[in-house]
Amino acid sequence: MRSEIAVSDRISLDDLNALDKAGFVIALHDIFEHSPWVADAAYRERPFATVAALHTALMGVVRARGEAEQAAFVSIHPDLAGRAARAGAIAPASVSEQAGLGLDQLSEEEYTRYEALNTAYRERFGFPFVICVRRQTRDAVLDAFERRLTNDRATELANAIDEIDHITRLRLAERIDGPGLPDIAGRLTTHVLDTHKGGPAAGVRVELFEVGASGRARLTEAITNQDGRTDAPLLADVPLRIGTYELVFHIGAYFAESGAALPHKPFLGEVPVRFGIAEPEGHYHVPLVVTPWSYSTYRGS
Amino acid sequence: MRSEIAVSDRISLDDLNALDKAGFVIALHDIFEHSPWVADAAYRERPFATVAALHTALMGVVRARGEAEQAAFVSIHPDLAGRAARAGAIAPASVSEQAGLGLDQLSEEEYTRYEALNTAYRERFGFPFVICVRRQTRDAVLDAFERRLTNDRATELANAIDEIDHITRLRLAERIDGPGLPDIAGRLTTHVLDTHKGGPAAGVRVELFEVGASGRARLTEAITNQDGRTDAPLLADVPLRIGTYELVFHIGAYFAESGAALPHKPFLGEVPVRFGIAEPEGHYHVPLVVTPWSYSTYRGS
Amino acid sequence: MRSEIAVSDRISLDDLNALDKAGFVIALHDIFEHSPWVADAAYRERPFATVAALHTALMGVVRARGEAEQAAFVSIHPDLAGRAARAGAIAPASVSEQAGLGLDQLSEEEYTRYEALNTAYRERFGFPFVICVRRQTRDAVLDAFERRLTNDRATELANAIDEIDHITRLRLAERIDGPGLPDIAGRLTTHVLDTHKGGPAAGVRVELFEVGASGRARLTEAITNQDGRTDAPLLADVPLRIGTYELVFHIGAYFAESGAALPHKPFLGEVPVRFGIAEPEGHYHVPLVVTPWSYSTYRGS
Amino acid sequence: MRSEIAVSDRISLDDLNALDKAGFVIALHDIFEHSPWVADAAYRERPFATVAALHTALMGVVRARGEAEQAAFVSIHPDLAGRAARAGAIAPASVSEQAGLGLDQLSEEEYTRYEALNTAYRERFGFPFVICVRRQTRDAVLDAFERRLTNDRATELANAIDEIDHITRLRLAERIDGPGLPDIAGRLTTHVLDTHKGGPAAGVRVELFEVGASGRARLTEAITNQDGRTDAPLLADVPLRIGTYELVFHIGAYFAESGAALPHKPFLGEVPVRFGIAEPEGHYHVPLVVTPWSYSTYRGS
Repeated sequence: MRSEIAVSDRISLDDLNALDKAGFVIALHDIFEHSPWVADAAYRERPFATVAALHTALMGVVRARGEAEQAAFVSIHPDLAGRAARAGAIAPASVSEQAGLGLDQLSEEEYTRYEALNTAYRERFGFPFVICVRRQTRDAVLDAFERRLTNDRATELANAIDEIDHITRLRLAERIDGPGLPDIAGRLTTHVLDTHKGGPAAGVRVELFEVGASGRARLTEAITNQDGRTDAPLLADVPLRIGTYELVFHIGAYFAESGAALPHKPFLGEVPVRFGIAEPEGHYHVPLVVTPWSYSTYRGS
Repeated sequence: MRSEIAVSDRISLDDLNALDKAGFVIALHDIFEHSPWVADAAYRERPFATVAALHTALMGVVRARGEAEQAAFVSIHPDLAGRAARAGAIAPASVSEQAGLGLDQLSEEEYTRYEALNTAYRERFGFPFVICVRRQTRDAVLDAFERRLTNDRATELANAIDEIDHITRLRLAERIDGPGLPDIAGRLTTHVLDTHKGGPAAGVRVELFEVGASGRARLTEAITNQDGRTDAPLLADVPLRIGTYELVFHIGAYFAESGAALPHKPFLGEVPVRFGIAEPEGHYHVPLVVTPWSYSTYRGS
Repeated sequence: MRSEIAVSDRISLDDLNALDKAGFVIALHDIFEHSPWVADAAYRERPFATVAALHTALMGVVRARGEAEQAAFVSIHPDLAGRAARAGAIAPASVSEQAGLGLDQLSEEEYTRYEALNTAYRERFGFPFVICVRRQTRDAVLDAFERRLTNDRATELANAIDEIDHITRLRLAERIDGPGLPDIAGRLTTHVLDTHKGGPAAGVRVELFEVGASGRARLTEAITNQDGRTDAPLLADVPLRIGTYELVFHIGAYFAESGAALPHKPFLGEVPVRFGIAEPEGHYHVPLVVTPWSYSTYRGS
Repeated sequence: MRSEIAVSDRISLDDLNALDKAGFVIALHDIFEHSPWVADAAYRERPFATVAALHTALMGVVRARGEAEQAAFVSIHPDLAGRAARAGAIAPASVSEQAGLGLDQLSEEEYTRYEALNTAYRERFGFPFVICVRRQTRDAVLDAFERRLTNDRATELANAIDEIDHITRLRLAERIDGPGLPDIAGRLTTHVLDTHKGGPAAGVRVELFEVGASGRARLTEAITNQDGRTDAPLLADVPLRIGTYELVFHIGAYFAESGAALPHKPFLGEVPVRFGIAEPEGHYHVPLVVTPWSYSTYRGS
């Protein structure tokens, strides 16, 4: 029978469209945690031409509900970094999502802080704080938590639904094969232009760091090619995590190689460019236009 | 008698010019350590119109000597961070100069490294490594030490004399009151220009750090005034230490205050500008031309 | 007698403060054309500590009047580039001011255009178009004329009074010697920084043009000094005329002299920077930060 | 017979490779004017895998000859803008190439100047001045003429052969269909980035002018699209003519549309960027990074 599909397998959109209602609901059962009514109600809109259309239909079901039902729906979600996560009592997808950010390995002090925030949030709004952690760095989660605590309830209910929109869009994109996947990936690219010689700067080492409150962690590094670009984007294919980043361009070594006349201690050695990412699905192009004595950078496109 | 002058007092150029030879030599006895012949030979060129002319005459005596005498002269200088410094057996001026860089408080490991370098240097050249530490950061001293070890002997003898030129110029500038003080001070200034609104950026917090191999140390901070400048130079009055520095401009807070429409996580928050200083007596003007989405910087004037 | 002062002589503020009322009114008779009541009413506020305070007092008299009196006061002013100017029937100061812009030497076509504008303006507002021509280029006068024709009457009455404020401030600054001259002068400066070599660009020829609808006229030229600046501001001491300007930096010749490796046809030869001036009493600093392959400019300070 | 091919038709590389020697020489007869021996000698190297390889083989024949034969070969070429061109006595390809630059329609004064240059050049070197006019603006031809007159004969013979290389490469690219066309086309592109709002500037009118000694001529205009670029390169598909160009970016209108708070007379209205092109087959990317108060540009990639 078609409904005997294994629940975590990838499935094609065509196959999904061909399922009976029970199969359809089971196939999507871990997209919206503990809320089979969402898939159940969206079923009548099949067949779906694109995965994005499927997602829009599912979220349409949620958004059509009244405030009380939406609040109940949000309330099903686990606390962030809460006891449920530590105890293994949350949906598998939630576990791996929270683990991706290390929220399953917080220090006792951090858990205490999250618990205080979770408690304050629940007391104020009556439902848990929901955020799509795969679009956030750890610092960004805390920033959002504290900022959103000051909102009113209607804003926060809308924010929670928006975050569930992000969460489920990502889950669907991983579960369903098919045309019209929703837009889930951002991109970070760079480009080094040497205006001392008037051309692309090839062979520049570029490091990318995530900058957190407690330090910075190196995410990747690359060397610029003949066009002054990196062969692949520095970040791609997944949402960019909201947060602070730093590119470090090894310009001193580059100009030393080029034979430019420079002092022993060059004016520019490692050039850090620190910037914030606010749009996880955006394209951040952060170029460096550089001479041994100057540089400029900007959010490009 | 005029020659009974206290040796570490400041003295006016006029008074110095009026001294007899014995007094003149005593008055300058701690400028060139253990080498009274320098002042003795320069005495006949008095009166000196400027302190700079006095210094030129003194160094002229040194530079006129042959290679063997110069090497003997250099050899009198103490090892850098050596046992003499730890045992208190070097000239008082040398003590305070080396102490200014913390070279009297190295870890055992660092002393061992310096000892190895001192030994290698002495074995190769036959005289000690001399450097004007007041023009250097600690990292720059080590860089210079390792770099200069690869030179030939004639180059290093010339380098040692040049460093003694720097050392004695600084000592003279502190000892002699008079016109025509030699140029000993560098200057670091900044300026923040907001090209989003088209005018100077007032109220921007700017921090200055020295960046070393083992971390960075904050040297000073300032707030830009109505002209986008700091009321006083960030560094002035003394030689700039050769080394790596970082200015951090708190641009995110500035634009948040200005009411510009920005994302929650602005593109630019803290803007670091890291640069090397190679000319201790130079003027480094390092401005920031900035919008919420771009900036440029350069060595200005 | 003190009131027998020649009407166009300069007079010190002290002397003016010492005049009797009749003398005071005569001394200022050509500041406010055909309106002795202004000086008459301001007389009781003497002595004036500064020339600026005198001007504020005089304009205070005007601004205190009701709308009808102000309109009558404005109505006394001659048409711009009108028959009165051609026939010599306007106040001497107005003649020279309009002549400074060449408004006494318009082509027949231009007179016709001005006449049409003057007629339209008078018909719409009941008083003539008043503008301080010494703060305007010819194109700016026409732009303002056409733009202001679309305003309502209250706005235009206020604009006319503001322009009379500018006109009389300039006249006073030329007539009265004394402390606290009002702020009448703008300033245009530049600075060329060579980020190819990392220092000021000396010896760069800089031309300044006024750019009009019918062509451009060279106002001045200068050569940058060792600090990359011109020895004197490009414009100073008088109001900057609202209008469009172009700086042309002869960068190709500069870099050819510097020995940089460049193609026969360099990327940058004459670098034009075209910009508008909107604040006649402002400081416009328009620098060029340049390499053989790039440049940036901005309104600096 | 295969050699009866019409001489100005396009021909495929395969067909050309299949021709007998007589047909091959005829097919290429107007590539190297009046010099059938070039194709004759290159025939034995067939088949040619690419059009570029064919060109290399043909030029290889020329470059292998001695100095006297090369000079004789160069001497066959017509004078630039000379009587032959006016009288119609030159190869058809030369006529259209010279006509493309308007060299067939010079004023009497200009002809006189060219005649004087031609005479001086022939007297000095014994062969005519050869230049690939399709890679030049008119001003660039004159610049090259005057500059090359100061070279020695060996340099000029090499220059003439290099120019014939350019001329024949272009002719071949138009005559032969086939893989591996030689690289004959340059490209000029732009990009406008608005760092006031932090994204591409869409809707900016961009005009391109050729700037000559006697004025400037508009070549094209375009409007930037949503990515801040023009839908097509400003120049492409043919060699860029060596010369001076000016891009004019209508920035004032763009920011006025955007609703930014600007003075009546904005600081930036029409932003001209004037630059030289020295590499006809190069890619010139000339972007503008702009706010209402600043801009930068550079030769990008």
